[in-house]
Amino acid sequence: MPYEFKATRRVEFSETDMAGIMHYSNFFRFMETAEHAFYRSLGFSVVFDRRDPPLGFPRVHAECDFRKPLRFEDLVEIHLLVREKKSKSLSFCFRFRNLTASPPEEAARGVVTIVCVARQPDGSMVAAKIPPEIADRLEVAPSELLV
Amino acid sequence: MPYEFKATRRVEFSETDMAGIMHYSNFFRFMETAEHAFYRSLGFSVVFDRRDPPLGFPRVHAECDFRKPLRFEDLVEIHLLVREKKSKSLSFCFRFRNLTASPPEEAARGVVTIVCVARQPDGSMVAAKIPPEIADRLEVAPSELLV
Amino acid sequence: MPYEFKATRRVEFSETDMAGIMHYSNFFRFMETAEHAFYRSLGFSVVFDRRDPPLGFPRVHAECDFRKPLRFEDLVEIHLLVREKKSKSLSFCFRFRNLTASPPEEAARGVVTIVCVARQPDGSMVAAKIPPEIADRLEVAPSELLV
Amino acid sequence: MPYEFKATRRVEFSETDMAGIMHYSNFFRFMETAEHAFYRSLGFSVVFDRRDPPLGFPRVHAECDFRKPLRFEDLVEIHLLVREKKSKSLSFCFRFRNLTASPPEEAARGVVTIVCVARQPDGSMVAAKIPPEIADRLEVAPSELLV
Repeated sequence: MPYEFKATRRVEFSETDMAGIMHYSNFFRFMETAEHAFYRSLGFSVVFDRRDPPLGFPRVHAECDFRKPLRFEDLVEIHLLVREKKSKSLSFCFRFRNLTASPPEEAARGVVTIVCVARQPDGSMVAAKIPPEIADRLEVAPSELLV
Repeated sequence: MPYEFKATRRVEFSETDMAGIMHYSNFFRFMETAEHAFYRSLGFSVVFDRRDPPLGFPRVHAECDFRKPLRFEDLVEIHLLVREKKSKSLSFCFRFRNLTASPPEEAARGVVTIVCVARQPDGSMVAAKIPPEIADRLEVAPSELLV
Repeated sequence: MPYEFKATRRVEFSETDMAGIMHYSNFFRFMETAEHAFYRSLGFSVVFDRRDPPLGFPRVHAECDFRKPLRFEDLVEIHLLVREKKSKSLSFCFRFRNLTASPPEEAARGVVTIVCVARQPDGSMVAAKIPPEIADRLEVAPSELLV
Repeated sequence: MPYEFKATRRVEFSETDMAGIMHYSNFFRFMETAEHAFYRSLGFSVVFDRRDPPLGFPRVHAECDFRKPLRFEDLVEIHLLVREKKSKSLSFCFRFRNLTASPPEEAARGVVTIVCVARQPDGSMVAAKIPPEIADRLEVAPSELLV
């Protein structure tokens, strides 16, 4: 069962800021992009509306340590590792590697924790079990990779 | 009946790009922000879910002429004028004035056209009449203001 | 000499809005992304700092007609065509095709006009000739393609 | 000397996502917006270019715990507290309170650590002392407020 995934993404002009580097909020967008590409690689998508009640996967925690700035047109590898798997939540860690740097260098490390929620008719969200078609298709990465 | 509205918004750091100016896509975000503030000033909100079928107001056309760049921390006035009112669509024009410049200067002019749509159970959208509680509360600006 | 370019981009979760479709401001980000990929395909980048005076390419006009919404995970082809080439400005048109739709369908059409500017020591920008290493490497598309 | 600041910001439509809530990356944008408003309240701005070498304040760490979602048009108070002050770095914590909820409720808590850097002619960044006109104008919040 897969416990990791690598996505690549090029830094776009609109993602830079006046300091000439990628704005830090975009690291969090990129983590999510890699997470969703991981799901696609497993054959499913994050869909909200086709179940009853509809499920969602909001983030409850996110963090990132920024080591080297990313710049316009840098090609970035986002390496996702499954860090923790519980009945109602998943945690991923992410390593950003700037493939344009020579030699390639680690730019940042992040962690994101998501919970599975069922959306109630009144719009509120209640924690729910992660469906087996997701939970059974991924596993926690070996601990030596999570250091 | 009102035909205009003025909102102000300060340019945030994350809205700048590596050229040191506000990224051009944000002018379109600001137009929408002013439009929604206009609706709030009239006592209603752009709500999708409480009607049956739910209504939405997607944009079908948007344009902008950029004259002077906006920069970080500039305070911007977004002047909305109702340009056209049809049974199923509305068109607004927008003038951006940089209040931080001395003297204040016009930074951009834009136009946005929205249509009212009813969202069908299958997710598709069908053009629909703008509800009277919206249509009856705004009017087209005098033509001399729209030059 | 090339007069067109096709880029593809997948709609990311953070680019959707509460209406369930890609937020309209992102069409303008995508146009720029295709423009920069076009430049890269010609062997150069939009660089600001290495010339004296440094050059920039701000947008002076942008517009878009939205025909079909784009949704999360849709794969989008952005077809760029050179529409006009003047000594100090370039104009591109863009066609968005949703490759995930079956059959693929046109989602939007846009136009962007950029000017070449030289950035002065005081931060102001003065229109300047497009350098030959850019201007000489692209040409205007045949008019029948620009209809 | 001030150790806290409160900014308010309304959630804009473009900041929501298809789950109907504010996209989580925007919490990080809002923290920065509050930080810059704090600086403005002290009489200075985050300026990069007027010193020699120019200074910048990149983020080296950011985290956020999300408790309640924020929705379109919610008015949010972002309460900044100075958490740590070192010679070359500052750390802030942030509490998001949804003022539109009734009663107002805490939506999220975050922490951001920034370092002062001097930008070298080759574009690289070297850690530098925070200038006294910043460092001497703020102090660490009482520990009982930082729990």
